[in-house]
Amino acid sequence: MSTYSPRVFRALTWHDATPAFAGGTDSPRAYLERCLETISAREPVVQAWVAMNEAGAREAADASTARWKAGKPISPIDGLPIGIKDLLETRDMPTQMGCDAYRGNFPKRDNAAVWALREAGAVVLGKTVTTELGGTHPGPTTNPFDPARTPGGSSSGSAAAVAARMVPVTIGTQVGGSIIRPASYCGNFALKPTQGAINRGERQATSMSTHGPHAGSIEDMWLVAIEIARRAGGDPGRMALFGPATPPPARRPMSVAVMEAEGWRVTDDASRSAFEAVLTALRAQGVTVLRRGDHPLLDAFEAALEGGQALTGAITGWENHWGIRNLVAQNPDGVSQRTKNVLAAAEKLTPEDYRMLLLQREAMRSAHAALAPLVDALIAPASPGPAPLWSGDVPGQPLAKRPTGDAVYNTPSSALGAPVVTIPLTAVQGMPMGIQLLGQPHSDAQMTAIGRWMMEQLPAVSV
Amino acid sequence: MSTYSPRVFRALTWHDATPAFAGGTDSPRAYLERCLETISAREPVVQAWVAMNEAGAREAADASTARWKAGKPISPIDGLPIGIKDLLETRDMPTQMGCDAYRGNFPKRDNAAVWALREAGAVVLGKTVTTELGGTHPGPTTNPFDPARTPGGSSSGSAAAVAARMVPVTIGTQVGGSIIRPASYCGNFALKPTQGAINRGERQATSMSTHGPHAGSIEDMWLVAIEIARRAGGDPGRMALFGPATPPPARRPMSVAVMEAEGWRVTDDASRSAFEAVLTALRAQGVTVLRRGDHPLLDAFEAALEGGQALTGAITGWENHWGIRNLVAQNPDGVSQRTKNVLAAAEKLTPEDYRMLLLQREAMRSAHAALAPLVDALIAPASPGPAPLWSGDVPGQPLAKRPTGDAVYNTPSSALGAPVVTIPLTAVQGMPMGIQLLGQPHSDAQMTAIGRWMMEQLPAVSV
Repeated sequence: MSTYSPRVFRALTWHDATPAFAGGTDSPRAYLERCLETISAREPVVQAWVAMNEAGAREAADASTARWKAGKPISPIDGLPIGIKDLLETRDMPTQMGCDAYRGNFPKRDNAAVWALREAGAVVLGKTVTTELGGTHPGPTTNPFDPARTPGGSSSGSAAAVAARMVPVTIGTQVGGSIIRPASYCGNFALKPTQGAINRGERQATSMSTHGPHAGSIEDMWLVAIEIARRAGGDPGRMALFGPATPPPARRPMSVAVMEAEGWRVTDDASRSAFEAVLTALRAQGVTVLRRGDHPLLDAFEAALEGGQALTGAITGWENHWGIRNLVAQNPDGVSQRTKNVLAAAEKLTPEDYRMLLLQREAMRSAHAALAPLVDALIAPASPGPAPLWSGDVPGQPLAKRPTGDAVYNTPSSALGAPVVTIPLTAVQGMPMGIQLLGQPHSDAQMTAIGRWMMEQLPAVSV
Repeated sequence: MSTYSPRVFRALTWHDATPAFAGGTDSPRAYLERCLETISAREPVVQAWVAMNEAGAREAADASTARWKAGKPISPIDGLPIGIKDLLETRDMPTQMGCDAYRGNFPKRDNAAVWALREAGAVVLGKTVTTELGGTHPGPTTNPFDPARTPGGSSSGSAAAVAARMVPVTIGTQVGGSIIRPASYCGNFALKPTQGAINRGERQATSMSTHGPHAGSIEDMWLVAIEIARRAGGDPGRMALFGPATPPPARRPMSVAVMEAEGWRVTDDASRSAFEAVLTALRAQGVTVLRRGDHPLLDAFEAALEGGQALTGAITGWENHWGIRNLVAQNPDGVSQRTKNVLAAAEKLTPEDYRMLLLQREAMRSAHAALAPLVDALIAPASPGPAPLWSGDVPGQPLAKRPTGDAVYNTPSSALGAPVVTIPLTAVQGMPMGIQLLGQPHSDAQMTAIGRWMMEQLPAVSV
C-alpha cells in the first residue's frame, strides 16, 4: 500500500545538479553511478529495463565529465543519463518492442531523437520496457509506488524508471495514451508534443504518434525535448517544436476550460474530488475556469469529442495493420492474442471507412481550433483515477480489456495533434494522479509554462 | 538513332486483352509467356530488371487463368504481369534499392501497394531498376528507343520495361521527378498521384514521395492505381485516391494554363515548338489556353514556383538524411559519392532552415489552390526535351550533374502535392517527350480524363 504524496516525493532531477559539475564536487560519472545503484536496488521488483549498455554509458559519462570540468558542456543535458523506450532504434542495443517476433532485432542504428540526444551529450543508458508494439499487451514492469499496480502503458518502463528515481528523464511514445497515462500513474512530468514536432525517425507509420520525455522535473522535461528538436527537427513535412532553449518561466493562465471528454463519466469519486480541489485552487488564484455549459463553443467541442476513443483506436489500428499483418504472417507465434485481436478488427475496415474516420477527426480539430481565443488551455485529469491493480491474465479466463489502464482522457490530444503537459499535482488514495494541460498545436512551451506555474503556486492535493 | 513516333508505336496493353480470357482464346498465362519472351529478347540491352520470380509469376498466372475461365476474375487487373520498382519491399524477392549497402536485403514482406496488387490478382513478376536509393546515381538501364540515352530516373527500369513492351504496367515512385521524367523519356502514360493518395507502406520517410503506375495505356494506368487504392488506401492521415472503378471517360477541359515553372527557360527550341503545336491543337478544339501574363493569379503562381527545384531537393535531402547517414555510418563503401554529396549538403541544414523551406512550400501550395476556379488543369512538357545521351561517368572527371536528366518540370507537382498525368503525345527528334497535366489535389481522375481526351482528339506531334 503506497502513501505517495506529491510534495513529499522527491524525484531525481538533473538541471539543479549541473552547477556542481564545473566545480568538481559532483560529475556526470558520479551521477550515473548513483543511478546505477538505484537501478540495482529497485530493478528486481520494478522491472523497467530490457537492455542496458553500462560500459558505453560510463564511457559517455566520463567524456561528459571532462567537458564540464573544462567549462565546455555541449548542452544543458550533457551527461544526463536517459532511458529510451524500446520501440526506438539504438545503434548499441537491440530494439525488441516487447514482442517475441522482434526478439534479437538489432538494426545497429539510432533513431533521429536518439542521435540528437547523443549529439547533445546525453548518456543513453538503456532501453525501457514497452507493451507489445506499443499496444495493450503488457510487459513485466510494476508501478514503483505499489508493485500490485500497473505502471500504465505503453511507455511502462519509461514512466516507472523515472518514478523509481533510476534516471531523471526517459523517452516515451504516445499514440493513444502511452505517454500521459503512465506518467499520471507514476507521478512523472511528461510532454506529449504537438504532432510532428519531434522527429520520429524510422517510426512514421502512424498519423497520431509522438515521442516525448518523462521526467522528474518540468525543467528537465523541457530541456530534453528542446535539445532533441533543435537537432533532429520535426517529422517530414512538419515544423519542429517551438520554444526557448531554457525551461519556459512559470506563467499564470487567464482562463482554462475543463475537458470532460469521455473520461469524466468514468472517473471515480475520489479522483473527481481531487480534480475539483485543483479547480478551486485555480479560481482562488484568479484564473477563470469554464465548464461544460458555460460557452457554446466548449459544448460543441465536447460534442465533437464523443466517440473519440474508438476513433483513435480505429485510425491507429488501420495505420498499424500493414506492419502487424506482415509480422504475424512471418511469425504467427511471435505476436500476442491481444495484438492479433486488434489486427483482426483493423482488417475489417476499408479505405472508405478510414476516409470517414479522418473526416471525423478533422471535425474534432476544427472544434478545438475554435477554442483558441476562449481559453489558454484545457485542463483535465491525466487519467480517470490512479493506477489500477494488475496481477496478470488468468489462464482460462478472457483477456483483461485494459491491463495498463484506461486511456480515455488521452485519446483526445492524440486525435487533435495537440500538445499535452501532465504534472504530478494530486494523489488519490496514496497513489499519484496527474493533471493535464492541453493546448493548441505548437503551444508546447505555453503548456509547460502553465504547468510550472501550477506546481509552484497551487497546493498539492491528496484525497 | 530512334525514329519513335507517338501514333506508330504500339505499347503493350492489358485492358483490351482480357475479353479473350473468358472465351479461352487467350489467357493470363499465355500473356505472361509473351512478356517473358519479350524480356528474353530485349533485356540484354535494356537492363530494366534486378530480380524476377518467374516460377511464382507462372503459378499466379495459372491461378488467374482458372479464375477468368470460371468467369470469376477478382478484378480487371487479375493476371496482369507487373514490375515493382526495387525501392518497395516484396515478400518473394530482395529489395536492394540500387545500392551496394542493401545488397542481399530481403525483408520477406510486401509493401502495402504490392500486397494490394496481389489481392487484386495481379502477377508480381519482378523488381525493376532504380537509381541508387531513388536519387541521382544511375543504374544500368538504357532507353529502349535508343540505348545511348538515359531512360530517366529514378524509376529507370519501370519506365523502360513498359517502353520495351516487357509488361503492360510497372510501379514507380517520385520525390523530385522520378515517375514523370522517365515516363516522358520512355513514352509511357504515368500517374504521379496526389500526395498520400496511394499508401506508401514502409516508405513514409519523406513528405513528398508518391507511388504510381507507368503504363502502355491510360486505361491500364488508371485501373492499377485505383485497384491498389481500393485495397491499401492512402498514407497514414491521408485520404485514398478518389475516382471510379473503371477508367474515367475522356473529358474536354474548358481551360488550361501553361506552367512554365523553371523549365521553360531551359527547354530546347525543338521541344518548345512541339509543345506549342499541342497548345495550337487544344485551341483548335475550343479550349482556352492561358499563358504567363494572361492573369495575375497565374503570374503569382509562377512567381511562387521560383526556386522550387532547389526547395524540393533541400526538403527531400533533409528528410532522407537520417536514413542515409545511418547507412553510410554502417557501410561507408556501400553508398556512391553522388549520394554522399547529397547527404553532406543536408547535414548543413538546421531544423530552422527546414521550417523556412516548409513555409515557402506552403506559399507555393496557396498560390496553386488559388488557380482552382481559373483553369481545369495546368499543362507543361513533362521534361525539358527528350532523353539526353548518357554513356557513364568518365574516370578522373567530375561526376555528371544529371545523368538521368533534368527534373525541372517535375519538382513543382512534388512540392505542391498535386497529381500529374503524363501522356506520350509528342516526339522530338525521334524520341518520346511527354505532355503533363497537373491538377488540384485529389483531381487524379479528372487529369486522367483530360489526358484520355487529348490522346483521342488531338493530333500527335513529331518535330
